[in-house]
Amino acid sequence: MTKWLDNQGPYKDTVVSSRVRMARNIKDFFFPTIKDPAGGEKVIEKVYQSIISANEAMNKDFKMKRMKDLTKIQRLQMVEKHLISPQLAKHHESGAVVYNEQENLIIMVNEEDHIRIQALLPGLQLKKVLESANQIDDVIEERLDYDFDEEFGYLSACPTNTGTGMRASVMLHLPALGMSGQIHGMLQFANKMGLAVRGVYGEGSDFTGNMYQISNQVTLGVSEEEIIEKLQEITMHIIEKERSLRKNLVKEQPMEIEDQTHRSLGILKSARIISLEEGMKLLSNIQLGNSLGIIKNPELGRIHQLITMIQPGSLQAALGKELNLRDLDIQRGTLLREKLTNI
Amino acid sequence: MTKWLDNQGPYKDTVVSSRVRMARNIKDFFFPTIKDPAGGEKVIEKVYQSIISANEAMNKDFKMKRMKDLTKIQRLQMVEKHLISPQLAKHHESGAVVYNEQENLIIMVNEEDHIRIQALLPGLQLKKVLESANQIDDVIEERLDYDFDEEFGYLSACPTNTGTGMRASVMLHLPALGMSGQIHGMLQFANKMGLAVRGVYGEGSDFTGNMYQISNQVTLGVSEEEIIEKLQEITMHIIEKERSLRKNLVKEQPMEIEDQTHRSLGILKSARIISLEEGMKLLSNIQLGNSLGIIKNPELGRIHQLITMIQPGSLQAALGKELNLRDLDIQRGTLLREKLTNI
Repeated sequence: MTKWLDNQGPYKDTVVSSRVRMARNIKDFFFPTIKDPAGGEKVIEKVYQSIISANEAMNKDFKMKRMKDLTKIQRLQMVEKHLISPQLAKHHESGAVVYNEQENLIIMVNEEDHIRIQALLPGLQLKKVLESANQIDDVIEERLDYDFDEEFGYLSACPTNTGTGMRASVMLHLPALGMSGQIHGMLQFANKMGLAVRGVYGEGSDFTGNMYQISNQVTLGVSEEEIIEKLQEITMHIIEKERSLRKNLVKEQPMEIEDQTHRSLGILKSARIISLEEGMKLLSNIQLGNSLGIIKNPELGRIHQLITMIQPGSLQAALGKELNLRDLDIQRGTLLREKLTNI
Repeated sequence: MTKWLDNQGPYKDTVVSSRVRMARNIKDFFFPTIKDPAGGEKVIEKVYQSIISANEAMNKDFKMKRMKDLTKIQRLQMVEKHLISPQLAKHHESGAVVYNEQENLIIMVNEEDHIRIQALLPGLQLKKVLESANQIDDVIEERLDYDFDEEFGYLSACPTNTGTGMRASVMLHLPALGMSGQIHGMLQFANKMGLAVRGVYGEGSDFTGNMYQISNQVTLGVSEEEIIEKLQEITMHIIEKERSLRKNLVKEQPMEIEDQTHRSLGILKSARIISLEEGMKLLSNIQLGNSLGIIKNPELGRIHQLITMIQPGSLQAALGKELNLRDLDIQRGTLLREKLTNI
């Protein structure tokens, strides 16, 4: 369970979550891309101490996990929950993650940079999520010396992160744009406006479940506020388009949408074998049906939880063992049936 | 509702029903294929009187409907319930049908022949169904003069019906043969043995819902008992093959069959729009699931009822108005949901 997903934010009908990520490095240590186990371990200790020594609340709230102490399945589950990046899961010798109980304030240690602060909130809350990330950033900066250049800003292992070192992103659910085929034009538009678009699960180019992550690409020569404002503006534009297409759907094909919603819920409640792709598609359908008021249950937050829970890592972590594709599909069917049986 | 379908007969897992049809003509009247309205009306009266004058029970049990007094929708529904043939529904100026309360003893009047006696029973009961048809045949023959030739037997408007004038048929549900692709070889075998194979609903070559009707083709030079025995023998062979394939399915793909059953029932209980083809396919799936003991409800007889009820004529007759294809699909969804909601 990803606790913060149960809360619902503004524009919940289209925006699943907002995220801000900051890249920071500590003076006098090699970048993590250079092999230095002793240095890497010191960085982990310094970062963790800076958090839990900040105050009693943070001491209680945050915990740390070293990648090397986790199984492959546990790391995969953390990727699916957006706790860590696929890169950190893969290069796990000297990596670690520090995160709070809600799992929405996260510090990845020794990924590409020494420190990657991540803050997440449900719905469209870019300013608030920036504030949250800034608070963590301040806590660490008070205690550690960042690699900072007056001219270039925060230095980073990868030049594209230099400057503010910040990436802001929104995770969007855009079924009507997907169904109408207008999504491609919309993604091209976002690209032209300097934003990157990728899928949320599986490979980056895979938009199963009509889920899209849109983020800024430029971090140098712009302020954090400018990045947020631009992303907010383009997101609002996409939301309006998606909402207008949904209105058309309800007006022109009310019975088809009702059919799609109830049929999808019917399958989710009864099937014994569900592939990841089908599961994502069916959950996307009931997400849309919920947004349109066709069904009230399950609630949006619960559907977002289920999207995470049916991913391969989460399914295997729940059983505590590796599963082949077929057994994953059966386990996915069992989980969905159990979770939706009383709805 | 087709009352007799609620009962279940031998080999109910594969045999929906058995039917015997007899072609008879009355002396001194033109065959119905020759236009003679006054003569046609006399034939109707004679046949109807011969039935209701037989005894008090039959007088109470049987009723008569003239085709011209029925709407196109009502005639279509009667075709779907196997009360009348498509030919009688089409050439409806001088046609009529006499049938009992259970709707399984039927006399079509002025179809291709003056009299077509039909008897139906659930499951594989060819001998019993022949007895039933013979009883009706005897009742009429005591009161009317049949066109009978010592050498050729019963004379008929179409030479292929001359002789016994009898066609026996079984309606089979063969999903495992369908799924395995072995159905084609089986149908070729039946053809080679002198039997005709057609679909049950829609055009004769359309095997939606894995439903097949197998009947004798030759009526001259063989006895009624020989026809029945041969059909019974080949039907038993097909049943054994179907059952053995089902056993394999359960052994090799138990989870897939369970998935297919529950998924199909889930869709039937929740969808808002269901095409005839999809409805037939889903009902075929739960029919198989029921035969294999995966679900107990709905019962087989109820499923067979539903197959009739979702046909276009029955849906329109229930509402008392013509519907376009889209509205038929919506009405079909509504009916299935209502009938299956508590299962």
